[in-house]
Amino acid sequence: MATRMSTLFLRTLREDPADAELPGHRLLVRAGYVRRAAPGIFTWLPLGLRVLRKVEAIVREEMDAIGGQELSFPALLPREPYERSGRWEEYGPLLFRLQDRKGSDMLLGPTHEEMFTLAVKDMFSSYKELPLTLYQVQTKYRDEARPRAGLLRGREFIMKDSYSFDLDDAGLEAAYQRHRDAYIRIFDRLGFEYVVVYADSGAMGGSASEEFLAVSKHGEDTFVRCAASGYAANVEAVVVPQAPPIDASGVPAAHVEDTPDTPTIETLVAAANAHHPRADGRAWTAADTLKNVVVMLQHPDGTREPLAIGVPGDREVDAKRLEAQVSPAEFVPFEEKDFAQHPSLAKGYIGPGVLGLEKASGIRYLLDPSIAEGSAWITGADEHGKHVFDLVHGRDFTADGTIQAAEIRDGDPSPDGAGPLTLDRGIEMGHIFQLGRKYAEALDLKVLDEHGKQVTVTMGSYGIGVSRAVAAVAEDTLDEVGLCWPRALAPYDVHVVATGKDGAVFTAAEDLVGDLEAAGLDVIYDDRPKVSPGVKFKDSELIGVPTILVVGKGLAQGVVEIKDRRTGERREVAVSDAVREVLAEVAPGTTP
Amino acid sequence: MATRMSTLFLRTLREDPADAELPGHRLLVRAGYVRRAAPGIFTWLPLGLRVLRKVEAIVREEMDAIGGQELSFPALLPREPYERSGRWEEYGPLLFRLQDRKGSDMLLGPTHEEMFTLAVKDMFSSYKELPLTLYQVQTKYRDEARPRAGLLRGREFIMKDSYSFDLDDAGLEAAYQRHRDAYIRIFDRLGFEYVVVYADSGAMGGSASEEFLAVSKHGEDTFVRCAASGYAANVEAVVVPQAPPIDASGVPAAHVEDTPDTPTIETLVAAANAHHPRADGRAWTAADTLKNVVVMLQHPDGTREPLAIGVPGDREVDAKRLEAQVSPAEFVPFEEKDFAQHPSLAKGYIGPGVLGLEKASGIRYLLDPSIAEGSAWITGADEHGKHVFDLVHGRDFTADGTIQAAEIRDGDPSPDGAGPLTLDRGIEMGHIFQLGRKYAEALDLKVLDEHGKQVTVTMGSYGIGVSRAVAAVAEDTLDEVGLCWPRALAPYDVHVVATGKDGAVFTAAEDLVGDLEAAGLDVIYDDRPKVSPGVKFKDSELIGVPTILVVGKGLAQGVVEIKDRRTGERREVAVSDAVREVLAEVAPGTTP
Repeated sequence: MATRMSTLFLRTLREDPADAELPGHRLLVRAGYVRRAAPGIFTWLPLGLRVLRKVEAIVREEMDAIGGQELSFPALLPREPYERSGRWEEYGPLLFRLQDRKGSDMLLGPTHEEMFTLAVKDMFSSYKELPLTLYQVQTKYRDEARPRAGLLRGREFIMKDSYSFDLDDAGLEAAYQRHRDAYIRIFDRLGFEYVVVYADSGAMGGSASEEFLAVSKHGEDTFVRCAASGYAANVEAVVVPQAPPIDASGVPAAHVEDTPDTPTIETLVAAANAHHPRADGRAWTAADTLKNVVVMLQHPDGTREPLAIGVPGDREVDAKRLEAQVSPAEFVPFEEKDFAQHPSLAKGYIGPGVLGLEKASGIRYLLDPSIAEGSAWITGADEHGKHVFDLVHGRDFTADGTIQAAEIRDGDPSPDGAGPLTLDRGIEMGHIFQLGRKYAEALDLKVLDEHGKQVTVTMGSYGIGVSRAVAAVAEDTLDEVGLCWPRALAPYDVHVVATGKDGAVFTAAEDLVGDLEAAGLDVIYDDRPKVSPGVKFKDSELIGVPTILVVGKGLAQGVVEIKDRRTGERREVAVSDAVREVLAEVAPGTTP
Repeated sequence: MATRMSTLFLRTLREDPADAELPGHRLLVRAGYVRRAAPGIFTWLPLGLRVLRKVEAIVREEMDAIGGQELSFPALLPREPYERSGRWEEYGPLLFRLQDRKGSDMLLGPTHEEMFTLAVKDMFSSYKELPLTLYQVQTKYRDEARPRAGLLRGREFIMKDSYSFDLDDAGLEAAYQRHRDAYIRIFDRLGFEYVVVYADSGAMGGSASEEFLAVSKHGEDTFVRCAASGYAANVEAVVVPQAPPIDASGVPAAHVEDTPDTPTIETLVAAANAHHPRADGRAWTAADTLKNVVVMLQHPDGTREPLAIGVPGDREVDAKRLEAQVSPAEFVPFEEKDFAQHPSLAKGYIGPGVLGLEKASGIRYLLDPSIAEGSAWITGADEHGKHVFDLVHGRDFTADGTIQAAEIRDGDPSPDGAGPLTLDRGIEMGHIFQLGRKYAEALDLKVLDEHGKQVTVTMGSYGIGVSRAVAAVAEDTLDEVGLCWPRALAPYDVHVVATGKDGAVFTAAEDLVGDLEAAGLDVIYDDRPKVSPGVKFKDSELIGVPTILVVGKGLAQGVVEIKDRRTGERREVAVSDAVREVLAEVAPGTTP
């Protein structure tokens, strides 16, 4: 049955919604696909639900094709399994927690490793039953601190999560590869530009992992690519190699200098060049300074711990890279009250003297790996208004280790040495992990191997943001006048627009709608009697069905117009040819 | 692709699960359809999910056929709309409440009247846009006090809820009738015995409402039917007519008698017959006594109020009928501490003297409508060990009104006067309500009528328990050896069982599976190599696919066996005829 716009639960908006940040999200709201119910929580209106179902169907087909078996876990879950895995605490405020009427702790599932692990443990017990891949397409919950960007980072969202269960590493590797191949097919079918990058496995606690990112300037994730080698990784996963040692024999002894009013790198460099010029005459730059940043870690168990990070003064600490390194702890700024409790730290003049050598602070101190042994630095002298010059790493100070937390920049060398990196932004659409035995061990999932011995199962975990995919495709395909769906996801195959007041037009349009449906197409029909052609055209552009069939004043001459939403190309065809012509666009090769 | 039992995520159980109360639920667990994740919360395993999807598809088809438009609201909802409708409080402990990281109150939607009302208010504004029917198939949450009976009363469950929006009562009536017709088609297709009964609209606050009950001795609902008139109602909705007045002129004046140790009706009747015989020589019976029951109401706002109910001594107060009458308040027993606060109440000897006449108690007193004006009673004298005889309603005491709270019994007269009622039990599968303007008024949903005047919209609310339907059908169709699905809901069309160790058997079975699939059938194939025929047959009976095709030792003679799961009938057919014969059973009239 064709959807008639005269009765469709739809109201298109000419104005952008106030709370929508991204163009695609604005259009999804304006075109009546989704509507906000609460921050980060959306209602799928009829048009949006049709697109969502198409994404789900593609995901299911490809998961079934690799032998995935679909089941469906509840979203409301007991605390106990998440307690055993440690994630009840580790998730921190990201987890929606609640109590039932009896006071039992429950949660809204953010992802289901625990439940799948327990189900397999409950039902299977022999190596003969492996390998096994299970999946679900299910509503998930995460209490994001900053739910923004519409469907791209919701607090209630739909995810396909699957899990592989294998006896050994080779099995896991094969399952991982099957998922990787399936994901490539899925994202190819969804029809947006994406890239597969090495990923930090973060809180999931696994080893190998890759992300599928939709390339988008609106993405929350930053990734790098090396054109020469094809290396690609999100910035959290980039491992900057340790810089090789430098001969420091020519560096004079460290000397403390007065540098009043230089709390920033910029002021420090200026003061150094003005009052303490380099012996070789070159100017000091920010890259000659060593910046020591102190943050406060908050561990899931509630304890707090300061952490100091040394990076070259021309680089910032990257919040996401640091986050990935300290997870499951979170970090927050080091505040005045924290400085008060650590009087050895001279704010703005913190140096490795206190941090790295004398250890007066008692604070863990980690260096960026670009800081070579033997390199000399201008850095804080742990005294207000003073910096130390020619402080040599390894000679004058040491640290507790290194940390991958400095920002990565366009042009930085690729970790594989193949050439420079380029930086881009993306939206995480899929994530594949080799979890290994973390959950199986925590929840005691073992099977008997062929020798009758109990072995711990090894697992993979694989996710696709299903509702997020709708937003990502919208974002990737829109143009200046509206949404512009690829055929695979369009809510309808064809949008029939009847214009004017002539009854004959509507009669002809009705007939064409009937014929198009009979030919197996999904049709939306703008049959609204008192709406102007201009509004109808604008609505059809906003809604973004790929093929638009206009029945209007040309009818008197026996012609209708077929318009390609993406290219804007229009052509007139005889009414009697219209169905065949539309079919040729929608499904080339079929006949009515 | 056929589902192969060698790799299917399935483990059938020979033993009943300890926590399953009903036969159907026991079988759904034993046959690997569902699994408990927490009390009242279930995981849908692959077989169960297939059945669930079939129910959903039938429901969607019929909702679409009456012009319903599908959308999908979130399950996690903000408090505000439920605050405005009053249900944030009214739902009491049935509502799962939680707070997000910012401390905002949220809830897990138990049903979505508020959200649908607000969506229509947000998007539509004119009478021209009505009538409108919206629906969703969605996960709902209710924190049941006693989650039991498996999927029949879960705490997380899937429901189809739809809502109609009309300008006037006639429109609502028509929308209600369309839903009623669609529900009849849906329940006919689902294939279980059901009855449509008048229902009490309870907390929904509407007027006309009917329930679709699956007839089942395991049902939690009791309903009555009158064979003569076709009248059917759940007991909460039965309105016992007011008994006509009786001439009490011959009844002597009321007199108080000593009745020591008679706190129960039974002891009272015995004492009355022994020591205070009737003037006409007939024996006193329980029906001659007036029993006064006091309960404590708990209102949603937390206040408590005692309520006294007078019923003939041969009837109990029916908890469900009383519940429906006092809703949204709940009632709890009147405890010792409550008696202590109401010293005028003599426990076991409470009478209308205190309650109804002198009002010394200050307690609201309501009578069963069978208690006629002019009827005379033996009842408590409000003094320990004493009862009053010949106490006449209207002469010696009055009450504050009547209440429909006494139990209904098999053989009671039908309220329509057509004949006796028969009592039966059922499972609520669907509920249709004429809500009227309650939610539209609370949330200010108005549209402009044709004269440009703002009018409040009138609404209907219609629900089907989708996950519950799976359980109800299982319950209704099972037999002593397992589940026994009707074709419309069976997870597969045909179950192919290969037995023995002969490679030729498995080869032939594979071929048949391929041919059956090519003919468009969904096939489950028991290809397990080392499982005995006995276990395979038992599993096929337990799983309950309607048609079973056994490929075994007959193959040497060129025959296979087709077995009807329900009737147990078996017949041998030539291998070459097998596909055609199976098709004839599964989809009569089609050819391979």
